[in-house]
Amino acid sequence: MNESIDLALPIYDDVLAARKRIEPYVKRTPVLTSSYLNRLSGAELFFKCENLQKAGAFKVRGACNAVFGLDQSQAEKGVATHSSGNHALSLAYAAGRRGIPSYAVMPRTAPATKKAAVLGYGGEVFECEPSTAAREAMLEELVARTGADFVHPYNDRRVIAGQATCSLELYEDVGELDAMIAPIGGGGMISGTCLAMSKVSPQTEIFAAEPKNADDAYRSLRAGEIIEDDAPQTIADGLRTSLRPRTWHFVSTCVKDVLLASEQEIIDAMYLTWQRMKIIIEPSSSVPLAVILKNREIFAGKRVGVILTGGNVDLDKLPWYSA
Amino acid sequence: MNESIDLALPIYDDVLAARKRIEPYVKRTPVLTSSYLNRLSGAELFFKCENLQKAGAFKVRGACNAVFGLDQSQAEKGVATHSSGNHALSLAYAAGRRGIPSYAVMPRTAPATKKAAVLGYGGEVFECEPSTAAREAMLEELVARTGADFVHPYNDRRVIAGQATCSLELYEDVGELDAMIAPIGGGGMISGTCLAMSKVSPQTEIFAAEPKNADDAYRSLRAGEIIEDDAPQTIADGLRTSLRPRTWHFVSTCVKDVLLASEQEIIDAMYLTWQRMKIIIEPSSSVPLAVILKNREIFAGKRVGVILTGGNVDLDKLPWYSA
Repeated sequence: MNESIDLALPIYDDVLAARKRIEPYVKRTPVLTSSYLNRLSGAELFFKCENLQKAGAFKVRGACNAVFGLDQSQAEKGVATHSSGNHALSLAYAAGRRGIPSYAVMPRTAPATKKAAVLGYGGEVFECEPSTAAREAMLEELVARTGADFVHPYNDRRVIAGQATCSLELYEDVGELDAMIAPIGGGGMISGTCLAMSKVSPQTEIFAAEPKNADDAYRSLRAGEIIEDDAPQTIADGLRTSLRPRTWHFVSTCVKDVLLASEQEIIDAMYLTWQRMKIIIEPSSSVPLAVILKNREIFAGKRVGVILTGGNVDLDKLPWYSA
Repeated sequence: MNESIDLALPIYDDVLAARKRIEPYVKRTPVLTSSYLNRLSGAELFFKCENLQKAGAFKVRGACNAVFGLDQSQAEKGVATHSSGNHALSLAYAAGRRGIPSYAVMPRTAPATKKAAVLGYGGEVFECEPSTAAREAMLEELVARTGADFVHPYNDRRVIAGQATCSLELYEDVGELDAMIAPIGGGGMISGTCLAMSKVSPQTEIFAAEPKNADDAYRSLRAGEIIEDDAPQTIADGLRTSLRPRTWHFVSTCVKDVLLASEQEIIDAMYLTWQRMKIIIEPSSSVPLAVILKNREIFAGKRVGVILTGGNVDLDKLPWYSA
C-alpha cells in the first residue's frame, strides 16, 4: 500500500487544515460531566462525546479529511478501506456526502449494525476472515481493480490529522488538562491527540487505554518496537488492530503509558456510563473509564479529558444480558 | 393540600427568577439533532436533552426552584412529595444540595433504579400502593408528622416556573420553532412550555404527547374538563398521573392538541432514539417522537422542538428483551 512509498507524518498545520475542511460535515460534539463519576474516580472528568458524532464515532473526522482532500479525478474512482466497523461506515458517510463510491472490507465477525450502517450510507461491503492478513489481501485486490484511493483506518497522515481535531475541540472547551486518555487500537485517535496536544498543551500527559485481551500497544511500548496481535478476542471490537509505523511514532514518543482493563472491567464501565451519563457508548469507548477507576493513584485529583470514541452497539446483544 | 388555599398561577417573571435561582444546581443541557430522524419524519427536529440533566430528568429544575426558594425556618423541616420517580429523586437531589431532609412517597411499582437514586441522594422513601388516592393519603400523614413543605410534582407554581426554564433554553439555542412537543403526564413540563413560549414565541404551536393507555389529557381536552385516570397501565411510567387545576389551566388554554401513541410505538421510538442518537431516554421521553412519526401531516416541513424529558431506565429490564 502507499505507506511503503510515503512515510510522511502529519504536522500541526495539517490539523488546522483538517478542521476547516471537515467543519461542514462533522458535529462539534458536546463535552459532558458526571458528578457521580467524579466522586467515584476522585478526578474531574471531561467526556468528549464522539459517540454523538455523525456516523456514531470520531472516525468520521479522519475519513472526511481524506475524502474531501482528494482531487476530483481521484475522487471519482472512489475510496476503499478495511475496518472492523467505525472507520468503514465513516468513510461511507464521507464518500456519500461527496457523491463518490466507497468500498469497505470488513471481517465477517464485525457487528451487524456496523455493516448495515455502511450499506445505509451507500457504501459497498466485502466480507473477509477476521485477520489482519485476510483483510489486507482483499483490500489490495479491490484497490487494484477499482483504482479507489486506499484510506487506511489509522496509518494515514490525513486520517491522523482529522482525528486530532477532536482533542483540539475538547481542549478549547474545557481549558488546561492534567491528562487526556483515549482507547487504543491501531492508534489513530491517540496519535491525533498527541499531535494536537503537543502543540497546544505539551504538559498534558497522554494515556492510552487498551483491553488486556488485545494488549499489543502495551507490549509494544515496553518492547520499544511494534508487536502485532492477530485477531485478538475482546468485546472492544474497535480495538483489535495493531499499531503501524505512523501511529507507532506518536505512541512511542508522546504516550506516557498504556493502561489495561479486563473484559469484565470494560463491560462494568460501559454499564456505569450508560446508567449514570445516559449516553450509549460502545465497549471500546469504555476502556478509558475502566482504567481510570482501577488506577486511582494516577488520576485522582487531576483534570482528565476522556475521549468517548463511539456509540455503535447492537442494542439486541448487550453484554450484561448474555451473563 | 395547599392547592385548595392557593390557586395562584406562575407568571413569566417567575420563570426568570427560577432561572437565576436554579442556575448553580442544574445543567444547561445540549440540543442534539439527527439527520436520520429528520429524514424519517420529514421535519427538522431539535431534541432538548433533559435525559442528560442532573438526576437524569428535567424535574430537577422545578424541584430546585422550590427547594432553594424556601425560607430557612421552613427549609429546616424539609420537603416532601409523592412521585412515580423522577420528581422524587430530583427533590432528593435538590434537598441534598441544600442540606435539608426530603421525604418521597413512591408507588411500590416504581422502577427500582428510581427508588435507589432517591436513597442515593440522601432522601427517605415511603412505599405505597400505585394509586393517586393511596399516594396522597400517605403524603398527607407524612407532612402532618414532619412539617415538611409539600412540593407537588406538577400542580405547584414554583415547579411549573422551574420546568419552564427548559423550553426557554431550547428557544434561545435554536431560535424560532413552528412547534414544540413534550410528553404529558400531570402536565408540569407542558405547562412550563406554554408559560415560556406564550411570552417569547406565541406563534409556536404546543403539542402534548401521551400514551394511548393513559389518555386522560387527551380526553380532558376534548371534554373541556379534567378527567382523571387512576393507575393506568403504560410502560411510560412517568406519564401515569392526571392533570390538576394549575396544569389544566395551561393545557386547556395553550395546547394545540394532545396526540396519542400505543405501547409498541413508544417502545419502537425509544429503540430508534437509542440506536440513532446514542442517548438513553426512558419510555416517557419517546412518546413525542412516536407521535411525530405517525402524524407526518402535522409536523413534516416544520422546525420542531422536542423535549426529551428523562433517561432513568432500568438497563436490566429493557422492553425489547422481554418480547
